Parts: sequence; structure tokens; C-alpha cells
Amino acid sequence: MPGGVTVNPDEVRIAFQLFGLTLQLPFWASAMDGVVDVPFAIAMGRLGGIAVLNLDGVQTRYEDPAPVIKRICEASRKEVNQVLKDAYGPPVVPELITDRIREIKAADVPCAVSTVPARAQERAQLVEEAGADVYVVQGTVLTARHRSNSYHHLSFDTLCRTVSIPVVVGNCVQYETALELMETGVAGILVGVGPGAACTTRGVLGVGVPQVTATCDVAAARQEHFHRTGRRVAVITDGGMWIGADVCKAFASGSDAVMIGSPLAGAAESASKGFNWGMATPDPNLPRGTRIEVGVKATLAEILVGPARVDDGTQNFAGALRSSLGVCGATEIREFHSVEMVVAPHITSEGKVLQRSQQVGMGR
Amino acid sequence: MPGGVTVNPDEVRIAFQLFGLTLQLPFWASAMDGVVDVPFAIAMGRLGGIAVLNLDGVQTRYEDPAPVIKRICEASRKEVNQVLKDAYGPPVVPELITDRIREIKAADVPCAVSTVPARAQERAQLVEEAGADVYVVQGTVLTARHRSNSYHHLSFDTLCRTVSIPVVVGNCVQYETALELMETGVAGILVGVGPGAACTTRGVLGVGVPQVTATCDVAAARQEHFHRTGRRVAVITDGGMWIGADVCKAFASGSDAVMIGSPLAGAAESASKGFNWGMATPDPNLPRGTRIEVGVKATLAEILVGPARVDDGTQNFAGALRSSLGVCGATEIREFHSVEMVVAPHITSEGKVLQRSQQVGMGR
Amino acid sequence: MPGGVTVNPDEVRIAFQLFGLTLQLPFWASAMDGVVDVPFAIAMGRLGGIAVLNLDGVQTRYEDPAPVIKRICEASRKEVNQVLKDAYGPPVVPELITDRIREIKAADVPCAVSTVPARAQERAQLVEEAGADVYVVQGTVLTARHRSNSYHHLSFDTLCRTVSIPVVVGNCVQYETALELMETGVAGILVGVGPGAACTTRGVLGVGVPQVTATCDVAAARQEHFHRTGRRVAVITDGGMWIGADVCKAFASGSDAVMIGSPLAGAAESASKGFNWGMATPDPNLPRGTRIEVGVKATLAEILVGPARVDDGTQNFAGALRSSLGVCGATEIREFHSVEMVVAPHITSEGKVLQRSQQVGMGR
Amino acid sequence: MPGGVTVNPDEVRIAFQLFGLTLQLPFWASAMDGVVDVPFAIAMGRLGGIAVLNLDGVQTRYEDPAPVIKRICEASRKEVNQVLKDAYGPPVVPELITDRIREIKAADVPCAVSTVPARAQERAQLVEEAGADVYVVQGTVLTARHRSNSYHHLSFDTLCRTVSIPVVVGNCVQYETALELMETGVAGILVGVGPGAACTTRGVLGVGVPQVTATCDVAAARQEHFHRTGRRVAVITDGGMWIGADVCKAFASGSDAVMIGSPLAGAAESASKGFNWGMATPDPNLPRGTRIEVGVKATLAEILVGPARVDDGTQNFAGALRSSLGVCGATEIREFHSVEMVVAPHITSEGKVLQRSQQVGMGR
Repeated sequence: MPGGVTVNPDEVRIAFQLFGLTLQLPFWASAMDGVVDVPFAIAMGRLGGIAVLNLDGVQTRYEDPAPVIKRICEASRKEVNQVLKDAYGPPVVPELITDRIREIKAADVPCAVSTVPARAQERAQLVEEAGADVYVVQGTVLTARHRSNSYHHLSFDTLCRTVSIPVVVGNCVQYETALELMETGVAGILVGVGPGAACTTRGVLGVGVPQVTATCDVAAARQEHFHRTGRRVAVITDGGMWIGADVCKAFASGSDAVMIGSPLAGAAESASKGFNWGMATPDPNLPRGTRIEVGVKATLAEILVGPARVDDGTQNFAGALRSSLGVCGATEIREFHSVEMVVAPHITSEGKVLQRSQQVGMGR
Repeated sequence: MPGGVTVNPDEVRIAFQLFGLTLQLPFWASAMDGVVDVPFAIAMGRLGGIAVLNLDGVQTRYEDPAPVIKRICEASRKEVNQVLKDAYGPPVVPELITDRIREIKAADVPCAVSTVPARAQERAQLVEEAGADVYVVQGTVLTARHRSNSYHHLSFDTLCRTVSIPVVVGNCVQYETALELMETGVAGILVGVGPGAACTTRGVLGVGVPQVTATCDVAAARQEHFHRTGRRVAVITDGGMWIGADVCKAFASGSDAVMIGSPLAGAAESASKGFNWGMATPDPNLPRGTRIEVGVKATLAEILVGPARVDDGTQNFAGALRSSLGVCGATEIREFHSVEMVVAPHITSEGKVLQRSQQVGMGR
Repeated sequence: MPGGVTVNPDEVRIAFQLFGLTLQLPFWASAMDGVVDVPFAIAMGRLGGIAVLNLDGVQTRYEDPAPVIKRICEASRKEVNQVLKDAYGPPVVPELITDRIREIKAADVPCAVSTVPARAQERAQLVEEAGADVYVVQGTVLTARHRSNSYHHLSFDTLCRTVSIPVVVGNCVQYETALELMETGVAGILVGVGPGAACTTRGVLGVGVPQVTATCDVAAARQEHFHRTGRRVAVITDGGMWIGADVCKAFASGSDAVMIGSPLAGAAESASKGFNWGMATPDPNLPRGTRIEVGVKATLAEILVGPARVDDGTQNFAGALRSSLGVCGATEIREFHSVEMVVAPHITSEGKVLQRSQQVGMGR
Repeated sequence: MPGGVTVNPDEVRIAFQLFGLTLQLPFWASAMDGVVDVPFAIAMGRLGGIAVLNLDGVQTRYEDPAPVIKRICEASRKEVNQVLKDAYGPPVVPELITDRIREIKAADVPCAVSTVPARAQERAQLVEEAGADVYVVQGTVLTARHRSNSYHHLSFDTLCRTVSIPVVVGNCVQYETALELMETGVAGILVGVGPGAACTTRGVLGVGVPQVTATCDVAAARQEHFHRTGRRVAVITDGGMWIGADVCKAFASGSDAVMIGSPLAGAAESASKGFNWGMATPDPNLPRGTRIEVGVKATLAEILVGPARVDDGTQNFAGALRSSLGVCGATEIREFHSVEMVVAPHITSEGKVLQRSQQVGMGR
């Protein structure tokens, strides 16, 4: 909802800080194999954002992952589930983890890598020594407590003491769980279960919370944790955002940054040139993601900082965020967190009958 | 909604108990003629679930029901209502009831059979003597009290004293009615009026209650009845579930087991190989169901216990249920009953624009 | 919502009484020229319902209205608005009013006729003398008070004293207005502004109230009026009902009878054999209705009393109403008024994905 | 919602007053280049409404704007964004501002012109001297306070003292902001952020408030301001209205007049003969509008005052407004502001299945 004051968009601040690390843009690229490879991570870093490289994907299983990605993209819909299972068969090679991180750092941009909880402790030292700036630990749903008899559960306290770089963990959608995770010493929390365009968790498991609700809840935990400890943990909304409006609403709900996957799969620089698939898609027993075709629509620069060549909100996310802060009278993102929001299911369709029927603008 | 603790899916318990009877899987196959015949019931039992054979359908009207089922499946849309009326014309043969039950029991799997309220008392002894393990009495809407001058109404108290095997009755959607039925001594209650994929009761009669609401209500009656008597009646949600998410939500709402029809009509082992029609479809005066084509999509094993070859939640219901319990921090189904739920109409469409437009994943 | 008791459908009573007049079925046919002509009114009466003949339509403007109706039905979409304006150009001939009423009464069935408020007083005596049983006065929105300088406003008190037959008026959607109308001495109230299938008032004027809400409000006025005076005015829900479920919900909301247009336009006996248009469609200045094609689907008997040949709720309204009363434990319509209702937007789509995609059952 | 009294539509008053200026119709044409040029403004004025000429568009950048408009309309969807950027490249010529205003005034009709906030003060004297009757200052979101270091911000107090003609400003959607704007001395407020058919602000920025809510809020500010000062500021709902029902609901929500764009782009007299694009569409960095094709459907007279040749609410807005006041028992627009409204999401679709499937009436 617009504010009582407006601010010139050129004069708002949208930079993001994660303890030592400062990013000019509060945009993270998701650790998805269709999006992030080494060249993409470098391009993202140069524009002022950061890309997360998936340590459990094809980049660390193959010396040359490009042909594997090509095979996945070219598979028919019928065979793609099997092609994915095969592609993720070979084991992760530790030396490739080191190589990929060094390749990114050689370009002098920030480097983030992610792994699953079960592997997080064993790989921590390797990741830090290779020079990564951020360590992301990510599972479908992650809590500070896990009951299992079969493997020794990850302790986030221990992990955070093992490495000196910031640890970002997720995904999480609730106040209590977020607060417990914050107390373990993590630097950031990824918010979202199942909203991603390539994810089917909500259809398969029936588990999820809408992103605005989830972000508000985790942001409230951030305030409580700050109040108790004076330490401000970053809240990063992850998934489900397609257009400027989605991104702006995440920030208005309390995000410090957003993590984006499928929209960036449509960048000319993406690893797959126009495809995306969830990290749980290759699961041999219960796949919970699907391969979607996004198509190449624009350069990464056009998507992140413009100028936009189109009018549908899919380009110039930074410009949209600046304008949105401006019309709401916020000079920086933290001020934007207290902007008034309105619940209006039809807000994006009111009056848009012709845009839909002609598939232009917001009707695409 | 995810829990504050997570549990390893391999270590959760999902078995179902109905007084003497224990099932490894809490899945029941609906008493629909397009789904359950003798071979299907045997396959279902071997996988750990149970199938209910319809005693008022073609299985007990014809020595060889296969050609009749074939005729129904091959009828055009225009003639199918008439073909169904004709198919259900011949009378039920009591000897066939005995035969079918014995054929199933010969495979050493649990056997459940169902009949309409008007026939329940007269067939009770026959069913028990033939060796059935569960006796299901099922009508569109069933109450402990029925006003009629034309036939002597069924007394569930009497019925439950007539047979020593557990009696499961339905369908029911309300707290008060469920409680009254429980007080008659029944072992389980089927929940649901009109949600089934092949049912049109809600269109024809305008009667029904959404499954989550209905299950919560009947589950509350179970708690009250347990509190009063120490006896725990099983709550079985019946119909309207298509994917893992639906099944998981039913359990989260309070189900002890779920009864599934149309998804199992799509199993390679189903009686019709890909069709389904409601039990009230052949009604000569006011048909309240329709024949739908489901198509054969997978084996029964793939649907029930996986591994899933697809990513849309239609396969590996047991795996989905285990994972859902896991991420919600429940070690068994009764713990899962107290999981927090969130009402979010768009939870399954948030961010899924491309899945829908490409008809992949949850957009199929 | 189902009741705690069920009743045998054959033993419920659904007859309707309007002061002296008793109808075996509580179904009225709308005063629409695509539906009601003399033969239709006779057919409707013989089945136990009543049809309302429109005194401002083609039946009283033309000695032989059949060719005019044919011309309207055969007009293209582009020319139909003009054809309608032309068709309603010639003046109403008073002698034809008398003729039509006598033709209907000659078949010894009940006869109802309707006119607009501006003509109601001047035609009252003529209508009664010709032998009509019910006099309906109907406008888009009707109140007991109307401000105008250009014509002397109709006084319902005066009108009710002018004729001795019951006067039914409408349309009305509110408690206060309904109460004021009841106090003038009318016998029944028609409920509904704009829900009809052939009506576009809600698009043109933005005026309307949903039928369930409107019926509940007017039914509450009926109770208050009965409490004050001991006189029970009939509440007749008019328009917007397509299938058994719609009809049943109107009764559950408080209707004593329902008035149906477009579903009856699809009867083999209808005046137009499959078309319908609103009474305000021919308005020369601001048309507020449209011609729709319904197609001939069934005989009037199949629609009203069955047996239904289809499973989608469009046939055997009486059977559906009886069954609905039965499962809700009501022995007559007045008991049905106090049945519990549930608000569930998706009640008719829950689990019906395949019915919709295959256009069978409730998905048509 | 209909009232307890009805009024003859011919006897209601719908004229609009803005301090000195009286319009017979409360309809404003939006300052969009696809709609308003000099001949259109004259036609609109002669029918009793008023058109706003955009001073930042093609009319004041080109001596002969017609070929430019033609080029925009003929551009393919792919190239239209670029064609728009090019078309808005040449600078605004001050002399053309004077010329356009004089051309309109030469026809002896009221003349309104609009400009962006950044140019409002510098052009004020020129506009008044050329003879304009109303000065509109319009931005996506406008407040009485704006923070910027790069240009001296517009003071509305100063502006209102600079010119003696009424100043109308927008757009605004909130009580507090509206009240602050009213206190600066403006004569009218435009209500609406992002509802317009050619606007994509809500998709790009995620900012907006539904029109009914926004209008109610700003209307409440009008009452408070009137209470404090005795001065009545006009509330003009701008955008998102397509049919009579939309227009009527805006008035019922508190509007004194409505501003309409895309429906008028479909008038035979429009500048583009059937196209429309938002004012923020040519933005070089972040376009927030799109070109839509409306098609030529009717004359301006048919749209505004009828007679309507169609039944879908797109023609005879004045007749619809008069009828709507009539059935709600209001004799003038201010009385209509206190009519009761009902929230019913499905009010325009209830019973309209066939209109939708046949694309007639409200289903187009």
C-alpha cells in the first residue's frame, strides 16, 4: 500500500549485509543446477548479487557437467524423471568442490555454496579452506532438532563453531523453529517450503505455508532474537517469486534479501539456458520436483538491474524494488518492513480482462 | 505445517489397527466395482492394505463379472447410464457372496466386504461364516436413526451383536451423528459425503461437507467417545483424495486410515483397468454418480509404496505419508493428529504458473 | 449438511400451499417467453407445478406468437438485440390476455399470469374475470414505495383489495422491503435480483444480492410477519438454479417454492424449444438481459419428477429434493428450513478434477 | 443492494460540480494518448462530460500527432515497447500546449489538461493563460510530501495559489494521504493505483489497493475535510471500470465522478480508434503499462448516454447509473453514497454458466 510520503527511487538504499559481507543487490540465485554454474556465479557477483552453487548436484559430480545438463534439458517429458535419476547417480567428488569454489573466487566475486544437512559437517572445513564466503545448509524442511537413529544428526551449534564464514540455513516457515535455529548461531535463514516453480513438495507431502505468512513469522523471530541478543540474523525469502510485485511483497513482509531460481533460469547466462528443476526432483524413491521450461527471455543484467524491455514485471527487479520503496515512502529496506499491506486476492486481476485475453502485460 | 522437530521418515510408524486386525498400511480400497475384484483384493492385501469388496455390485450378481465390467468401460458417454442400469439389473446371488470371500481368504490376506444398510442385517451371518474379517455397511448418508414406514430399519446395536467381526459404517460427516453411531458398538466410521471423483451427490442433492472439516468433526467425536468409554473407534476418511498431499492432510485432520477409490482405479491391477463409477450411479430413478476414465498409470505397488516414477504426488502414498510425518516431527499417526494446519486456498498454486501452463508436476 | 436422523425419501412431503391453491410440486415456471406458452402451462400444471404466463410478452401481443418466437431463436447473435426490440414493438392486446387465461383454464390446471407494476392495477380485474388463479406483479426491483412524478404509483394495498385471487410480487432481496411488501397483503414474494441465466442486471447496474443470502433475509421477514399477524406469506426463490443442488439449497435457505426459467427452457415442451431471454432484454434504451441457447435436453416430466437419465443433477428435481430432505432428516419443507448449512466455496469441485477434464457428471 | 424505496430513473440527478464548473455527466476521459486528442475532447464536452488532455504525451510533442499514434497502433507486440520509447523521445513544445487548449476551447466545451508533478509548477501559468478550465497533476502515486535531493519538490499549496482554476491531483488510495492533499487546497482527488486496463504497476511494483476500498477511504477523508473546513473536495475514481456495474459500484463507494480510459478507447471518436496504453508504458527504464487492443465497438454517445445496442453493460453508462440510483432509491449521487453494499465475490457469475460458455451477455 502506498505511503503518506514518497521518496525519489534514485535515493533509496537496497544493499544487503550479512555480517562481514556486503552485496549491492539483495538478490540471491538459488542453488539449482539449471541456474548456477561457475560462469553464472561470476556474472551474478559482478552485478552485485550472489549465486549459490549446489555442492550435491552435477557441478561436483562431473568434471564437465555441461553435457549432463544438456541431456536433462533435451529429454522428453516422459523420460526426464529417469534421465534425472541417472544424472545424479555418480558420487560427489570432493576435489571438484574445491575447484569450483576457487574458480568463482578467481573472478573476485563473493562465493556461496550449499549442501544438504547430512553432509554439512563433513564438508565444512573443505568449503572454508577453498575460500567460500557463505556456507548454505538446505533441506526441504530444517529444524534445530532432528530425531533419527540411523545417522548422527547435524548440530548447528557445532557447525557454526567449525567455520568462521557465515552459515545460512533453511528452509523454515515458522516462528518457533526460526528462533531455535537463530539461537544456534546461524547468520541467515531461508524462508519457504514448496513455493518454488519447479517444486512439487506441496502436492506430494501436503506441507507448506504461504510465503508472505512464512516471511512475516520468521521476521518476527528475527526481531525477538535481536531483542534478546543484539544479533540480527538475515531473513531470506526463497522461492515462489516471478515478477517485481512478488519480490517487493517479500521485502514488505520482512525479507532482508530474496533467493530466486526459475526467473534466473531464464537468463541468457544460466547454466541450462532456460530450464529448471528442483533439488528433490532426482530423489529415487519420492521425487518432489519437476523439470520446467522457462525459456531464455533476457540477460541477467536486464532481469536484475534493467533497463526493462518488457512491461510485465519480469525485468529490472532492482528498479522495481527502488520504485516500490519510493512510492511507499521508505528510504531503505528496514523501513520498508513496516509498510502497511493489504490483503486483496484480486489485486493483480482487477480491470485486467483485456491483458489476460490478449496475453500482454500482466496477462502473460 | 512443518514442525519444530523433524523425524527420519524411515523411523515413523504408519500401521493401522482395527481391534484384532493390523494393517501395515493405513490404506483401504473403496468398494467400487471399477476397482475391487478378487485378484485386486489379494494384491492390495499382500502390499499391507485392505480392499473392500462390494456385495451389491457385479461381483455378486454374475458368476463371471469381467465381461460386464468390460461392457461398462467400453460404453460411449451417451449410452453409459443405460448400460449401467442394465448391468445392475440381475439380483445378487447369496452363494456368490460366500464364494468371493473364500477366494480372497484363500490367499491369506485380510478380507473386507460392504453392503447397503437395507441388506446389512440379513447378510451378516453369511458374511461372517464365509470368513470375512471386516463388515462394512455403507450408504450415501447414514445415521443411527432412520425414519421409515416401509421397511424395518437397521439397528446397528443388533448388527454389532450379531457378528463378532468388526463393523465399519458410513458415511458420516458430523460430530453428533458420529458419536451416536460409535455408541452402537461399531469399530470404525467412514467419513465423507460426496467428495469422491466419481460421485455427483453434491451436484444432485446439494448435500456435503468438505473432507477436512468432516474429518476433524468425526475425529473429535472419537476423542469424546474414547473419553466416555475407553474404546477407540477408527476414523477412516473416504474419498476425494488424489495425491500424497490430500492423503497427508486427511491424516493431519484426524484420520486413522483413508479409503481410496479413483486413484486405485488407475492401478494396473484394478478390476476395470482404468475406469471408475460411483455406487449410486446405477440408481434407476436418480443417479448420483458418473463413470470417469482414469487410465492405467502405474502398478498398485508404485501407487502405494513406490518407488515413484513421477513427481506429481500420485505415486508412493506411503512414502509421502512417512515424509510428511517426518518433516512435521511426528513418529506415528496419532502424534500427527495434533500437527498445526494452515488454511491457504492457493497453497498448491503459489508460484506454479509454469507447471500449470506446461502441464507438468502439480500442473497436470 | 446431513442431519442426525434420516428419512425415507418416499415419505417426505414437498407440496406447496398458497392460501387456497395447493400444488403437488413446489416448482414455478418463470414468466419468460422462451419458456411459457399455453401448452407448456398446461403440461406444467398436469405434472403438479404451475407456470406463469407473461402478459407483457409475445403471447399477448400476437394472435399467433409462434412465428415471432421462431424468429428470435433463429436470429444470429449480432442481430438478436434488434430482432428482440422489433418483436416487442406491437402493443399488448387486452382480449388476448383473456384468451390465454381461458385456454389454460380449459385444461383444468392452475393458471398464473404476470405483469409489470405500471400495468398491474389496470389489468387486475380483467385477469381475475378471465379466471386466473394467481396474479404475479414483477419488476427488476420492487418495493412497497416508489417515487415518481410521471405516473401514479401502484399501491399494493389497493391492488390486493381489488382482486380476490392471491397476489405474488417481486423481485425483492431484503428483509425490510420484504416486510413492507408483506404488510400490503400480498400472498407471496419472489426473491432474487439478477441471478437468472439470461439476465445481465448485475453487469449493467451492479445491483444484486446472492440468492442464499437474499432467501434467508426474506424468509426471516416471513417469520417476523407471521409472528406479528399470524399470516404466512410464501417465499419463492426466483432464478439462478440449474441443478438439484441449487434447488435444494434454496429450500434449505427458507424457500417455500422455487421459480425456474432456463432449466425449463430446455424441456421438449418449452415455447422456444431450447432458448431463453430475460424480460428486460428487449428494453430499447438499456437492455439488461441476453438470449442464451439452452438446447432441448429432456422432457418436462424428466426434469421435474424423473426418472433421471443423466447423473448431473439436471433431471428429477422432485426426487433430488425428496432425497435431500431425507438425508437431512426432514419430513417436510418447513422442517428443512432449519437444516444446518455449511459455507464451502469448493464443495462442488472437491475431488472432481476428472469430472471437469472429461466433462462428465458435475463437470459438464 | 436495492433500497427500500425505488425512484423513477428519469427523475434522478447525476450532474457533477467542481467549484465553478458544472458537468451534466459525471464522466471524465483519462489523459491517455490512445483516447484523448482535440476532436475527442470536443465530442466528450458536447455530450456533457470532460476529457483530460495529456500535456506530456504525443499531442504536445508533435505538431501532427496522428501519424505517431498510427505507428504505435500498427506496431507488432514484439516491437511496441521500442516504438513507444521512440515516440516519446522528442521534447514537449510549450507552444503546442497553448495551441491544444485553445483548439478545445474554440468549440466552447470545458477543457482539462494534465501533467506530471515534476512539471506542474512550471507549466501552471501557461495552462491557465491558454484558457484551460481544470488543471490535473497526476503521478503513479502522489503525496503531499516527497523526499528528494535532486529536484525541488512540488508544493501543492503554492500551485493552488498560482492558478485560479481548480487543481485536481492524484493518484491516491488512502485516507491520511488524501486528507493531507485536500488541506493543500486542491479541488479534486483521483483515486486508484494500478487498476487500469492498460496499467501493469501492480505486477511490476506490487503496489495497489482495490478500487472500492480506496474510494471508500478517500471519500471518508472528504467527509472529514468537509467537517473541518466546510469545503467539499471532489473524489474521482480513476481506472478499472469496464461496465455499468463497475461505474455504479464506484459511485456507491463514494465517488463524485469517475475517470474512464480503456472503455472510451473503444469509441469511434477516440484518438487511436481502438487502442490504449498507460502513461508509464514508455518509461525507458521500468515500463509499467502495456498497449492493449480494445477495438472500436460503439460511438461515444452510445457508450455514455445510449441507447445501448448491446446487453453487456458496456453502453449507456448514464442510463445504468440512473437506473441503479433508481432501484436503490437515491435521487442524486450524494444520496447514493450511503446505499448499502454487499461483498459477494461471485455476484456477477451466479447462474451465468451458459452466458460464459456461449460468450454472450456478462460472459463476454
